[in-house]
Amino acid sequence: MTNRVRLFASFALLALALSFADAYDPSPLQHICVAVQEPKNVLFVNGKFCKNPVLTTANDFLFSGLQVPRSTANPVGSTVTTVFVDQLPGLNTLGISMVRIDYGIGGLNPPHFHPRGSEILLVLEGTLYVGFVTSNQLNNTFFEKVLHPGDVFVFPIGTIHFQLNIGKINAVAIAGLSSQNPGVTTVANALFNAKPPISPEALAKGFQMDEKLVETLQKKFWYYN
Amino acid sequence: MTNRVRLFASFALLALALSFADAYDPSPLQHICVAVQEPKNVLFVNGKFCKNPVLTTANDFLFSGLQVPRSTANPVGSTVTTVFVDQLPGLNTLGISMVRIDYGIGGLNPPHFHPRGSEILLVLEGTLYVGFVTSNQLNNTFFEKVLHPGDVFVFPIGTIHFQLNIGKINAVAIAGLSSQNPGVTTVANALFNAKPPISPEALAKGFQMDEKLVETLQKKFWYYN
Amino acid sequence: MTNRVRLFASFALLALALSFADAYDPSPLQHICVAVQEPKNVLFVNGKFCKNPVLTTANDFLFSGLQVPRSTANPVGSTVTTVFVDQLPGLNTLGISMVRIDYGIGGLNPPHFHPRGSEILLVLEGTLYVGFVTSNQLNNTFFEKVLHPGDVFVFPIGTIHFQLNIGKINAVAIAGLSSQNPGVTTVANALFNAKPPISPEALAKGFQMDEKLVETLQKKFWYYN
Amino acid sequence: MTNRVRLFASFALLALALSFADAYDPSPLQHICVAVQEPKNVLFVNGKFCKNPVLTTANDFLFSGLQVPRSTANPVGSTVTTVFVDQLPGLNTLGISMVRIDYGIGGLNPPHFHPRGSEILLVLEGTLYVGFVTSNQLNNTFFEKVLHPGDVFVFPIGTIHFQLNIGKINAVAIAGLSSQNPGVTTVANALFNAKPPISPEALAKGFQMDEKLVETLQKKFWYYN
Amino acid sequence: MTNRVRLFASFALLALALSFADAYDPSPLQHICVAVQEPKNVLFVNGKFCKNPVLTTANDFLFSGLQVPRSTANPVGSTVTTVFVDQLPGLNTLGISMVRIDYGIGGLNPPHFHPRGSEILLVLEGTLYVGFVTSNQLNNTFFEKVLHPGDVFVFPIGTIHFQLNIGKINAVAIAGLSSQNPGVTTVANALFNAKPPISPEALAKGFQMDEKLVETLQKKFWYYN
Amino acid sequence: MTNRVRLFASFALLALALSFADAYDPSPLQHICVAVQEPKNVLFVNGKFCKNPVLTTANDFLFSGLQVPRSTANPVGSTVTTVFVDQLPGLNTLGISMVRIDYGIGGLNPPHFHPRGSEILLVLEGTLYVGFVTSNQLNNTFFEKVLHPGDVFVFPIGTIHFQLNIGKINAVAIAGLSSQNPGVTTVANALFNAKPPISPEALAKGFQMDEKLVETLQKKFWYYN
Repeated sequence: MTNRVRLFASFALLALALSFADAYDPSPLQHICVAVQEPKNVLFVNGKFCKNPVLTTANDFLFSGLQVPRSTANPVGSTVTTVFVDQLPGLNTLGISMVRIDYGIGGLNPPHFHPRGSEILLVLEGTLYVGFVTSNQLNNTFFEKVLHPGDVFVFPIGTIHFQLNIGKINAVAIAGLSSQNPGVTTVANALFNAKPPISPEALAKGFQMDEKLVETLQKKFWYYN
Repeated sequence: MTNRVRLFASFALLALALSFADAYDPSPLQHICVAVQEPKNVLFVNGKFCKNPVLTTANDFLFSGLQVPRSTANPVGSTVTTVFVDQLPGLNTLGISMVRIDYGIGGLNPPHFHPRGSEILLVLEGTLYVGFVTSNQLNNTFFEKVLHPGDVFVFPIGTIHFQLNIGKINAVAIAGLSSQNPGVTTVANALFNAKPPISPEALAKGFQMDEKLVETLQKKFWYYN
Repeated sequence: MTNRVRLFASFALLALALSFADAYDPSPLQHICVAVQEPKNVLFVNGKFCKNPVLTTANDFLFSGLQVPRSTANPVGSTVTTVFVDQLPGLNTLGISMVRIDYGIGGLNPPHFHPRGSEILLVLEGTLYVGFVTSNQLNNTFFEKVLHPGDVFVFPIGTIHFQLNIGKINAVAIAGLSSQNPGVTTVANALFNAKPPISPEALAKGFQMDEKLVETLQKKFWYYN
Repeated sequence: MTNRVRLFASFALLALALSFADAYDPSPLQHICVAVQEPKNVLFVNGKFCKNPVLTTANDFLFSGLQVPRSTANPVGSTVTTVFVDQLPGLNTLGISMVRIDYGIGGLNPPHFHPRGSEILLVLEGTLYVGFVTSNQLNNTFFEKVLHPGDVFVFPIGTIHFQLNIGKINAVAIAGLSSQNPGVTTVANALFNAKPPISPEALAKGFQMDEKLVETLQKKFWYYN
Repeated sequence: MTNRVRLFASFALLALALSFADAYDPSPLQHICVAVQEPKNVLFVNGKFCKNPVLTTANDFLFSGLQVPRSTANPVGSTVTTVFVDQLPGLNTLGISMVRIDYGIGGLNPPHFHPRGSEILLVLEGTLYVGFVTSNQLNNTFFEKVLHPGDVFVFPIGTIHFQLNIGKINAVAIAGLSSQNPGVTTVANALFNAKPPISPEALAKGFQMDEKLVETLQKKFWYYN
Repeated sequence: MTNRVRLFASFALLALALSFADAYDPSPLQHICVAVQEPKNVLFVNGKFCKNPVLTTANDFLFSGLQVPRSTANPVGSTVTTVFVDQLPGLNTLGISMVRIDYGIGGLNPPHFHPRGSEILLVLEGTLYVGFVTSNQLNNTFFEKVLHPGDVFVFPIGTIHFQLNIGKINAVAIAGLSSQNPGVTTVANALFNAKPPISPEALAKGFQMDEKLVETLQKKFWYYN
């Protein structure tokens, strides 16, 4: 086999190998469908492809390190550690995931929504001011609460919600989400950090700001916590 | 029967009668399940209750008046006429609905998202600048386009999107949505017109504005188009 | 690399390239899953495969030309322009699609049903006599209506329905459907134009016709509008 | 309590009692949800209401008599015995049901489709000629087969299908369906026995028959087997 | 109003009030559908009924007390605190729930499965030996792991699984489940503590024990942790 | 082309060919999606891949031989013949399957559950004692019944159930299941025949047996009927 042929054939196999990724589904259709995760996919489906069940091991269902506090020294003062299907392949097709959220003093998990998941949040440490806003139909009613350790609160799918550490110590929360890939849209980032930028005219009109302010906001650094 | 008894019994029956409402479902489980719509429900389900199939008539599947241009003389310069299950009871359980949108010159259908529906939009008249922003995972990529009559564009479920009339005449669009009750959250209204208001501190931090500006925005009049 | 090797390797890559098609799903599991459409698939799933999200552009969500009247000079006097996932790849996994229907004078969109979608129809021009028939359980009740411009009517999933232009001018309608691939079964064509033909004995007995008539019908030209 | 009051209150309670019916759902959300079946419902949902789980007994999951051959002395020469949720309340929310079909010699289960269910059919006795037609997209391909005892055949959801006894003895089949309420639309009956009748003009044009023939067919007696 | 009339009418209203319970659904069809929980239901649906959205408050989404260690002084040495829809009405229709599990030294959360939910478990304190068994199709493969604080493990829907505290201190875990009402079937209890008891003959044959042993097991006290 | 090159290229094509398998979905998204079944898959999805619709034939929807009594000369005295998607590829995506169960005298279909399907069972011959146990929430209520030919009984999804031939002749039953791949977990086998074995300590504690007995049970031969 010449080098060029070997290269070519290797590429073909690599392509095949790399393609077994990015395809999960709403409900499991077999007991085991561990996601195959490869850096360079050439084939995508709605969800993720499954690892060969015969090759599946217990490690595919294990994620470690969630006990470790994460630094919150960042512009919003909070850090979200996600355990979604991209981090824990065994979640594929199972409709569940988890996050740990660390909040510095005054730290904010800024207003965001999950397009594909509801969230149940448990406060482990600290004091959080939390809330979610309903849709227009319900008059944009705002449900807010101050949470202490042991308190559990629910953020329904598709509602804009946030948590703010209003206590005097760092805070920690654990949350479950109703999808292996719930998605996150941080509202400020989607509006002012879209790539390419959204027309300032549209934003200015929609948010009753002048275009200058919109452009100023668009030039800021928007952090992903 | 005394008057008080009659009143009481009437109330009980009224309660029963009024209760047959507010319950639809993800997929139909029978051919006909027209929503029962009453002003004062005492019983609610996930979706809407069904009208007795035997009493259903063709009128339950008819909505009229969508040919009429609606005034766009309002703060955003656009008006949305919804044909959701609340307006057209025959849509109950069927996973489909429609809207007509009128845009004055420079009119904006401001940034919003549908928590329970994707949208396919057809421009009938005028020129629209439209776009949607994806979630953080896809880097808040903004997909934008200028649309002319006959152009069809798609807004995936849970993406923030808008339309702006950039032409010299009024514009009209018709859209289909993938739910009988897709919901609408106008982002600016949810943020700055929530009831009660969201903590200005949280909004200021999340949107990198000073709290004064937030409070100014919260005092503005936010129109529902 | 010899010619035969090159040919072989090219074929392998072509196979890979062509395989990224024909796989959509009931609900989206990520924000973006544009269908990949290739003429010759070698790999199929339930739905369609997704285009690499990184390569997705706004054009993937655009379909143009729906403003153009289509000729209705055909045996049924009507023409349906579908905007399904096969025509608009951005619809993949989103559960929504659209059609434009042109009706000549006396034109008929013949009795058919959608196995995977409900339909909401808006009359833009003309006068249509429309109706749908329910299943045996509801006694094959027929819901019929004459529609004028601006009227919206609903055809529930799996019901046989039709539209007939009873006005004196051409008619035009726009409809939304609750699937990116709702499917269409034109009843007459399925019965009398099946390939290979259905046993005339079965059709004759089922439709209370003599076999001669069935065979005559089976020899006719059945148009797909 | 006066008689009129007693009557009124009794009616209210009766209404309540009779209302616990007609509401099932796509997937069970608890272990037990036996349908409550009452002759006169005043409240309907998508599916059927559940019997109080505490009052549920084993009899709610039992249906007897499917071993008994049914007479096929009727116009189509076949009889379908359905075990749907209306006959077996324990099927509620479970997504499964069963039928027994008896075929006289030459008997036909006429062309029909199930809007909400696929069917797996097992021949117990006799010889059946069976087939189903796919939708327009697949060119109305007809898949046909002659089945003998022990043969199992599949009719996908929403496809028009039939069975014809082409043997010299009576035939019997058992089938499972993928819904507790799959629905049945017998095509000939829906077309020619709709109530009120469909416009003969529409049927004549759609089926390439003259209107006289349509009217003749509409006057025939259409049997529900 | 006489006393008897008042009593009767009160009963009717009570019946109505008590009936707003026990009906949730697979996916939310509106933003807010807080479960109505009453001790004596007269009306049940697949899931739970919704509280009137207008009467919903932030407290409907709050559950408190999950920080409190629970006694594990019981036969299995473990205690499960569930935050399902029955405990937290705001979870209704949202497809998510949470549990806290306390384990004494040597404590066991005995082999069980959730018929309607997958589980993602986070160890907060202690050392757990955990595992799940797949179905026959996958050869009853057993996936086992020793978990330490910060470790996350997944138990797929419908798999028999357990956790055993093999450390020298009490252990605590938090888990998310992919349903608001995932259900729990403790295998030993279902087999040997069914009411009425299962035929010892069937159990003896199925478990290769003699009937005496089965009867001995059936007489034991089976704890629900 | 050298031998090594040919080998390599053949392997690549074989890999492609073998990969078109193991991917079905909860609901069909097209009319035809026959499973492709190959012995050595390299690519897996949630469900099974589809055969090219153009190559589909009627044989893909046919399974033969279910009339043949199967030997029940085995440790449990019963034999289950499954017609799942692995045996009948045409079932792919259709949510339905079938089994035939043969019972010798005294034969048992041992306690098991289907994680992804409800079951409707029809007795063709013999006398069966059957039952299912509900979850903890419903107090592990046991619903039992003696069935005779023509009796139909329902086993809800996720409930442990069994059938025992208590008659004096062989028995035969046919059942429909609400999934093309419902899965089976035989409880005894999952507990005592897991590979590798479950910790005897956990089983002993959970089942109130001494560890010796558990180890004895783990050494037995566990039959898959």
